[in-house]
Amino acid sequence: MGWTRAQPQPIGLTPLLDRRFSSRVFDPDHVLAPADLRTLLTAAQWAPSAGNSQPWAFLVGLRGDSTHTRFVRLLSRGNTSWAPRASALLIGLYQSAADPSPDGLAMPYSDYAAHDLGQAAAHLTVQAMSMGLHVHQFAGFDHQAAATEFEVPAHFTVATGIAIGQILPVETIDADDPSLADRERRLRGRKPLAEFVFGGTFGSPAGCTRDPG
Amino acid sequence: MGWTRAQPQPIGLTPLLDRRFSSRVFDPDHVLAPADLRTLLTAAQWAPSAGNSQPWAFLVGLRGDSTHTRFVRLLSRGNTSWAPRASALLIGLYQSAADPSPDGLAMPYSDYAAHDLGQAAAHLTVQAMSMGLHVHQFAGFDHQAAATEFEVPAHFTVATGIAIGQILPVETIDADDPSLADRERRLRGRKPLAEFVFGGTFGSPAGCTRDPG
Repeated sequence: MGWTRAQPQPIGLTPLLDRRFSSRVFDPDHVLAPADLRTLLTAAQWAPSAGNSQPWAFLVGLRGDSTHTRFVRLLSRGNTSWAPRASALLIGLYQSAADPSPDGLAMPYSDYAAHDLGQAAAHLTVQAMSMGLHVHQFAGFDHQAAATEFEVPAHFTVATGIAIGQILPVETIDADDPSLADRERRLRGRKPLAEFVFGGTFGSPAGCTRDPG
Repeated sequence: MGWTRAQPQPIGLTPLLDRRFSSRVFDPDHVLAPADLRTLLTAAQWAPSAGNSQPWAFLVGLRGDSTHTRFVRLLSRGNTSWAPRASALLIGLYQSAADPSPDGLAMPYSDYAAHDLGQAAAHLTVQAMSMGLHVHQFAGFDHQAAATEFEVPAHFTVATGIAIGQILPVETIDADDPSLADRERRLRGRKPLAEFVFGGTFGSPAGCTRDPG
């Protein structure tokens, strides 16, 4: 049995985390200024990484530009219903092998590259929340086609889609897309702490996982 | 040429990110209450993950307990000088293969497991900042010995060390550990945005990377 919550029921975290969820109701009229996109990417830039390797890269599209349009064509059907309305669509990539080019950076491939892309994306998400924006990451798109379309070199791996925008109340889509509205209202669940927070040995719930009551 | 900054020179992000850095000067007298550790892990719990797979696990030690003591023995020499003073030391793990046990969860292995551990650790870090704490993640410890010591099953990978505590001004260690104080004062650097934020094709700097100033 896990924890569940509806949005926006708070759970006692700092507001930038407490209000975060992966919404599917982005405002198709909201425009993200390039300067704000720059700020979001600055948050990713200053995320920590193993040995400061900074093994991440982002392809960025603003709704209406060519990168956005070309990425939308590669989305899975499930994501086509909501992601194109976001103000920005990014592709998150990480360096998964040594750079073979003669002017390649000295930094070798890091075993933590995927991990550190996750951290950078999370920092971007928190910064977005502080600016009144929401982020929804997704995996459902044609990764191989994206690598070809955007000429991604072999030493980088296409990992995630990252939708950024302003969200709307779910009621605004009830009439137009009731099944998407249902998904937006679905209760969110997580495993209880005792299933993944251990002390002494792996599998033994740590003392702090006991609900203080 | 990258960006550099000294701590705590701000760069215009939301304060929980702007003040974050990987300090090596933890207060050895600060005690982290189990309820606060629980709150930190609740932030990790509610991080997003691919298909809500939640592929992370944490071994947690509070300074003085047996998990902490046994983990300290496995630290690299470089980390032995500062990490044991943190109030909590965690090991971050992710599920890297299917669970072979008969009562194993139905959730298959996710390709995004390492990525999602990174996200969970970042959410924990942001929550810590909101509580006046700092987090310093590190890779320098004997991963294989940790897997043995804590009986980690083969379908989980030992990934990161996560030190959590209250930090002290660097001046407090100038007399006792001048070389650590030097490391703490070192300028922090990052690649410029134009080296990892692309538009159109991989390698072409996106428009938003141009400094408006």
